[in-house]
This record gives sequence, C-alpha cells and structure tokens, in this order.
Amino acid sequence: MTLRARIGEVVESTRFQWMIICVIVVNAITLGAETSPSLVANYGDLLSMVDHLALAVFVGELAARLYAFGWRFFRDPWNVFDFVIVAVALLPAAGPLSVLRSLRILRALRLVAMVPSMRRVVTALVKSVPGLISLTGLLMLLLYIGGVIASNLFGDSGDPRFGDLGSTLLTLFQITTGDGWSDVMRDLMVHQPLAWIFFLCYLMVGTFTMLNLFIAVVCSAMESDVQHVPAPRAATHDDLLLQEVRALRDEVRALKTTA
Amino acid sequence: MTLRARIGEVVESTRFQWMIICVIVVNAITLGAETSPSLVANYGDLLSMVDHLALAVFVGELAARLYAFGWRFFRDPWNVFDFVIVAVALLPAAGPLSVLRSLRILRALRLVAMVPSMRRVVTALVKSVPGLISLTGLLMLLLYIGGVIASNLFGDSGDPRFGDLGSTLLTLFQITTGDGWSDVMRDLMVHQPLAWIFFLCYLMVGTFTMLNLFIAVVCSAMESDVQHVPAPRAATHDDLLLQEVRALRDEVRALKTTA
Amino acid sequence: MTLRARIGEVVESTRFQWMIICVIVVNAITLGAETSPSLVANYGDLLSMVDHLALAVFVGELAARLYAFGWRFFRDPWNVFDFVIVAVALLPAAGPLSVLRSLRILRALRLVAMVPSMRRVVTALVKSVPGLISLTGLLMLLLYIGGVIASNLFGDSGDPRFGDLGSTLLTLFQITTGDGWSDVMRDLMVHQPLAWIFFLCYLMVGTFTMLNLFIAVVCSAMESDVQHVPAPRAATHDDLLLQEVRALRDEVRALKTTA
Amino acid sequence: MTLRARIGEVVESTRFQWMIICVIVVNAITLGAETSPSLVANYGDLLSMVDHLALAVFVGELAARLYAFGWRFFRDPWNVFDFVIVAVALLPAAGPLSVLRSLRILRALRLVAMVPSMRRVVTALVKSVPGLISLTGLLMLLLYIGGVIASNLFGDSGDPRFGDLGSTLLTLFQITTGDGWSDVMRDLMVHQPLAWIFFLCYLMVGTFTMLNLFIAVVCSAMESDVQHVPAPRAATHDDLLLQEVRALRDEVRALKTTA
Repeated sequence: MTLRARIGEVVESTRFQWMIICVIVVNAITLGAETSPSLVANYGDLLSMVDHLALAVFVGELAARLYAFGWRFFRDPWNVFDFVIVAVALLPAAGPLSVLRSLRILRALRLVAMVPSMRRVVTALVKSVPGLISLTGLLMLLLYIGGVIASNLFGDSGDPRFGDLGSTLLTLFQITTGDGWSDVMRDLMVHQPLAWIFFLCYLMVGTFTMLNLFIAVVCSAMESDVQHVPAPRAATHDDLLLQEVRALRDEVRALKTTA
Repeated sequence: MTLRARIGEVVESTRFQWMIICVIVVNAITLGAETSPSLVANYGDLLSMVDHLALAVFVGELAARLYAFGWRFFRDPWNVFDFVIVAVALLPAAGPLSVLRSLRILRALRLVAMVPSMRRVVTALVKSVPGLISLTGLLMLLLYIGGVIASNLFGDSGDPRFGDLGSTLLTLFQITTGDGWSDVMRDLMVHQPLAWIFFLCYLMVGTFTMLNLFIAVVCSAMESDVQHVPAPRAATHDDLLLQEVRALRDEVRALKTTA
Repeated sequence: MTLRARIGEVVESTRFQWMIICVIVVNAITLGAETSPSLVANYGDLLSMVDHLALAVFVGELAARLYAFGWRFFRDPWNVFDFVIVAVALLPAAGPLSVLRSLRILRALRLVAMVPSMRRVVTALVKSVPGLISLTGLLMLLLYIGGVIASNLFGDSGDPRFGDLGSTLLTLFQITTGDGWSDVMRDLMVHQPLAWIFFLCYLMVGTFTMLNLFIAVVCSAMESDVQHVPAPRAATHDDLLLQEVRALRDEVRALKTTA
Repeated sequence: MTLRARIGEVVESTRFQWMIICVIVVNAITLGAETSPSLVANYGDLLSMVDHLALAVFVGELAARLYAFGWRFFRDPWNVFDFVIVAVALLPAAGPLSVLRSLRILRALRLVAMVPSMRRVVTALVKSVPGLISLTGLLMLLLYIGGVIASNLFGDSGDPRFGDLGSTLLTLFQITTGDGWSDVMRDLMVHQPLAWIFFLCYLMVGTFTMLNLFIAVVCSAMESDVQHVPAPRAATHDDLLLQEVRALRDEVRALKTTA
C-alpha cells in the first residue's frame, strides 16, 4: 500500500472527519469570542493562537487531501469550496483588505460540507437556482426601470431616500420587501400628492412577480418530489397481476400441448 | 428574392437581434445616467444624443419589420407591445405630459421581448391573470366596503389617514399589506378605544381572502404542471398487461379451433 | 300560468338581475359619496333619496321572491344572506345603534351573490373553513396562554401595551402578524433585559403553527383539485383491461362446454 | 373486576374527561383573571382557592391514572406531557423560581391532549419537526456567521443593536423576519455608507434559505397527504381485476383436469 493510499484512507476515516468538525466548531467559537473587546483584552493571545492552530490544521488537511487525490480533488465542488475558504484566510488581511479578517468566520461553512444531511440540503438549494435565473433577471429589470422612473419623479423632492439612482434602487428594494413602504410614501405625498400612483403600481407588479417567483420555486421542488412517490406502489400491485396473467398463459400453453 | 423577404431575413437574423439588444441595454444605461444631475451637467449632450440615436434605431427597426411582415406584424402581441413602447416615446413630452419623459425607460422592457427565456416567464405570468380576476374583484369589493365603513367610523377622528374616502382606501391597502397596521390602530385607539374591533375583523377577512388568492395562483400553476407527469409511465405498464392478455386470448382461440 | 309562477319568472330573468346589480352598484357609490362632508352638504337630499329608493327596490325584490318561492326561498343560503343584509338596513339606526348605519354598505356584498364567478369563489372560501377550526382553536389557545404569561412577566413594566390582559392579547396578535414586534421587544428590554427569551419562544411557536395553518389550507385546497385529475384516465384504461379479461373468461367457458 | 380496572374505566369514561376539560377551562379563566390587579384585590382568595382546587383535581386524576395503568402510563407521550405540566406546578415557586408561577397557565395546554381533533393537529405538527432539523441547523449556522461578521463590521459604530454578539444575533434575527430592517440599515449607513452590501447579501441568502425551509415543510406535508389519497381507489379496481384473472385461472385448471 502506497503512502498516497494510506493518507487517503486516514483523511476519509470517520475519526479524522470528526476531528476536523471539532476544530471547525472550536474555531467558530473563538472567532465569536474575538468580537467581545473584554474577552480579547483578557484572552487575546489564546484566541489568536487557537485561530492560527485551526488554520494550520485546515491547511495540513487540504495538503494531505491534495496529495492523496491529486487533480481529482478539484472535481468535487465541495472540495473547491473548502479550498477557496482556506485560501482566502491565507491572504494578507492588512490595510484596505482588513474586511477579509471578518470573513474568516466563513470557515464555519465548512461544517456544511462535513455533515451529510446539511450537504444534501445545500445541494438541493443550489440545484433550484438555475430555474430561477430568468425570473430573477426580470425582477432586477423591473427594479431598474422602477428606479429610473422614481428618480425622475421624486429626485427633486429633497428626500435622501431618492437622492441618486443608487439610493432609489435601495429604497425600491426596501419597498419590495414590504418594510415601511407606507412611511416612504406618506413622506413623499406631503409635496407630491400623486406619489401613491407610482407606489401602488410598483407594489402590484413587484408583488405579483415575486409571488410567481415563489411559485416557480415551489413547483420545481414539488415536481422532483412527486415523480418518485407513486410509481413503486402501483408497480408492485401491477407486477402481481402481470405474474398472474403470465402464469395463466403458461397453463393454457400446457393445455394446448396435452390436447 | 424580393426586397421584402430580404429585409424580413435581416430583421430575424440572430446578429440583428443581438445588435438591438445592445442598443436597448446602452439606452437603459444612458437613461439611468440622466437621473444624475452631475452627469447631465458634464455629458448631457452625449446622453441626449445616444437617446435620440437609440430611438431612431428602434423606429427604423419597427419600420423595417412593418414593411417586411405587413399586417401580420400586429398578430404577435409582443410586436404590439414593442410598437406601443416606441410610439409613446415619439409623443411630444412637454407641459402636462412631461411625466411621459420618465416612461422612456419602459423601452428597457423590450429586453423581455427579445430574450426567449424571459419571454416564456412573462407569458406564463400573463396567462395566470384571468384565473385571478374573480378573487381580485372580491378583494377590491372588500377594500371598498371596508373603506366606507372606516370613513364612517373614523372620519371624525381628525386622523389625516382617514380624512376622505381616497385616503381611507390607501390606508386600508397599507393595512392589507401588513405594513405598520398597529401604529394606525394605536393612534386611533387613543380617542376610539373600540377601533381594534374593526382592525381585527378587517385583517382576518382580508388576510384569509389574500391567502386564498395566493392558493388559487399556486393551484392553477400546479395543475398545468401535474397533468403531464404521471400519465406516460402508468400507460406503458398497463399497455404491457393489455398486450399479454390479448395474446392469451388469441392462444385460447387457437385452442378452440384445434379442439 | 299563475301569478306566483309569472313573478318567479320575472325575478329569475337576466334583465331583472342586471337591474338589481345596477341598483347595488349605484347604491354602493352613493354610500361612498355620503362619506364626503362637502358632497353631503351639496347633494345630501339626493344621496339620501337614492339610498331610500335602493332600499325600497331591495325590499320589493325580496318580497317578490318570498311570494314566488315561499319557504323554499330560505333553503338557499345566499337568499338568507340577502334577507339578513336587507333586514339589518330596516332596523332603526338611532342612538347606540347608530353604528348600524355604517353597515349599510354591506349591501354591496349582495353583488357577490349576484355574480356567478364571485359566488363560486366565496363558496370555495366558506367550504375551506371547517378544516381550519382545530388549528384556529390551537392558535387562539396559544394566544391566550402567551397573553397570560406576558401579563405576568411584563404587567409591572408600565408599558401600556401590556397594561391588562386585553391590551396584552392585542399586542401579541400584533407580534404574530410580525408588525413592529422588535420595537415592542426593545422597549421592554430597557427594564427587563431577558424579555427577548419570551419573544423568541412566542415567535417560533406562533410562526411555526401559522405556517402549518397555511399548509393545511393549501393541502385541503390541493386535495379537492388533485382527486379529479388522474382518476378518469386510469379508469377507462383499466375498464378496457377488465372487459378484455371477462371476454377471455367467457371464451374459456365456451371451450369447457365444447370439450 | 379489580379496583384497578374499575378506576381505569372511570378515568377513561367520557363524563370524567368532560369534567377534566371543564376544570382546565375554569382554571385557565381564573389564571387569566389573576393578571388583573383589581380582580385580585377583590376576589384574590377565591381565585387562589379555585387554582389550588384545580391543581388538586389534576394531581388526583394523574394519581388515579398512574395507579390504573402502572408503567404503561408513561408509554403515551401525551401522558408524559400531562405529568410534566402538573409536576412543574408542584415545584416551590418562590425567590428566583417565581417565573415558574407564570408558567402555571401552561396547564391550559392539557386541553390539546383532551380534545381529539387538536391532538391530531399537534401530532402532525410534531411529526413535521425531524424533517426540518437540517435546514434549521443551516439557518442557525448562517445566523451565527452573519452575527460574527456584523459584530466585526458594525461593532465600533456605537449602535447598541450591534453592541455585542448577543445583541447582534437578536438584531439579525429581527432582520430575518423582515421587521424594520431598513431602519437598522439606514441608521448604520450614516457612518458606514457601505453597510447596505452586508444587508443585501444577508437578506438574499437568509430569505432564500427561509423560502426553502418553508417549501420543505409544504412538500413533506403534501407527500404524506398524497400517498394515501389515490391508493384505495386504484386498489379496489385492481383487486377486481386480480380476482377476475384468478377465477379465470381456476377455470383453466378445471379444464385441464377434464381434458
């Protein structure tokens, strides 16, 4: 048995996987603890050490898997996901890139790749994405059109929520989620009493499209479920019948030869 | 080959369609840029020129398609849609009609007509409308009845949200979407402590009807999906059984003649 | 032909039904107009006259239908609905009963009874109610239990939204609809920092139950839809098979007698 | 008939069950009344007496059922539920445990165990839980990751809603429910104009996952419904066919022996 195969075996063993899961959980907890200034003041060195140790474990694990599986490693999208997560953590996170430090917690997402039931859930989520692209594109087109119209109509109102195209798009997104749309409308109606026409139209079209986006998701999820369910049951019953008829035919044939 | 047929071929070619899509996208971007006062101050002439150029392209394209296809052009509702969008842009947009200038961005909706997958989504959306007319009518009737009752009950409360029938209808629409209904109710309850009775009744009836409107949409969307799926599978299995029984009958018949 | 039968025929004729629909619509509009003080000041007498005239028409119509159909009239629940709506309008609406004047607009609901497609929608709505009684009862039980707990926990906080059991129940209903629950929670957390525990538990349980209430509605609506679709197709196919097998059996019997 | 069997019979009788239901309802009402200071001032002794009496009845009932059924009593989860509810009420509720006094109202939940239709609803609710564990775990993971990122990004903003990890998690939960998320975002954007990027990403991912959680619930509820519906109908028809074919086979066999 080569070293390569032996490493591959170790890396795939349940005990090793559980160890990695433990490291991920511990690292997620220490990264959470690092958000507290008082904990950092007292145990800052410990937390930072655990973080570096966890990163070292992850790098070691990935290196072992890369060595064991070679280029096949990159065929599994979950492996690519692990690789990117760890690679991001190795980038220098100083200066303008300091926001990357906040993204270290994304390593906790590796849990998803390790736990089979979560893996299945996320795979299902990702598979439902392509069917939604057209409708999402339509929603973004509607958002852009609504944003340009709203900018033209309410841009001069002095309301900062309609100050430029970016703010307007953000405000329209807020209206689409239904959060506080009436406050936005009533503030505008003080100066532009007909503003409600735009809001009603936008809400109707937007909600109707969203509703259909939702239905598209439900329908595609249902379809894949429905296709598998009733077939086997009917089949066993029909198989019984088919066996019975075939046996009957054999007997008739036997009758023929005796006659 | 006539000129008419040659123009029809050019207009239907993929390269021409891609060119039109580009013009639509560029025009959508310039119309978005026109909402920024600083961009208009610096590049106003350029933006306005691109806008006129795009309109010229659209008019030319429509003219070419009208010439190539004649009256058949208007049989396709998507063509009628394109025609109206461009015709609106040619109207004089001065004085009271200046709001029409804001509607120029609706040209971006032509994208929907150009991209087949979006076209299918919108066709599905439009087809689901007739099944909803009765329920939408019922919702509007409930809104009107609720509006008249609320005007009678809360019209004297001095709350501008119930000032006249129009404001009351708008407020009730807001309550139906569930945005800030409790603020409206609590403000009224300061003077009319029993106002909550109306709000509870209206929310119950309104939400229940909305829920059913939603279900009606889902059901009609499902039905068209479900009908196609299980039929073929069962049929092939039953066909096998039927063939077997018929073959058996033939053999029995053969037996009869030999007997 | 008796007078009774002739009146029955008139009352059931399409022309008469359209006339009643017109009266309902005109009356709904005048009742809407009566909510405007300026319109009442100018055309008050006219509006009130139209209202009395409409009521007279409704009373006359009901009397005619009662005479024509006798007690059978009350077998149709839609007739009972019409009867109650008109009877309420005839009650004296003075003093404490003045709120009944506001309910005159409920006559507009007669439109639902007149238009067949709306009638079908409302019948479907009403039929879905019995299946929801258990879950609604459970929701009200949860609301009551939550109300008593919240009263005990937050009753001393001085927040008027938790002043007595009635206010608490109203506030919890507001939280169940998701409108401004975080404001309520944050106000309480100033003095009772652990208030979030109650809110999280209540939101989880309440939303989960609501979600299931919703699913129950969808499922029952689906079931009635699904049952009709696949049955006929399978039946005809199976019938064909059964006929074939029976014919085969007859032939075997015939064979027996010849043998 | 032993005493044990006789007590078992009494405890299971409809009359006894109705009596217990009455005691539960009366106790729920008195516990509600105890939330009103004025009612407690006037009838405090009576309310407290009814409460103790109800508790005594519950303890007596449980003792009788325990005696009658022995250890089998704990096999039914509903009995365990009753037992825990009553046992909690017997704990001393003084000092730090005074919050347990508020939980006495949970006894009203015994109603659910007594009324068969509610029992079925709750059983269905509980059965749908296991299928949701993976997705709920994923949601909590996303919440935690979002919380750590938000703490890092907005912890220094001075906004108390992002003061520590606990507050941040509560705020993110609020954003997930969609209640007032735009207010939270706009307050942050005053100092950190790019805060909208985090909110958009979090809302997209969170809502998409929630939507799929919802669909998972609907689908699992549907599946259990769909499986039972079409089977019996098809079965009876197929059984008829199977009987027919078997009878035919018997006749062929009889033919064989005569031949």
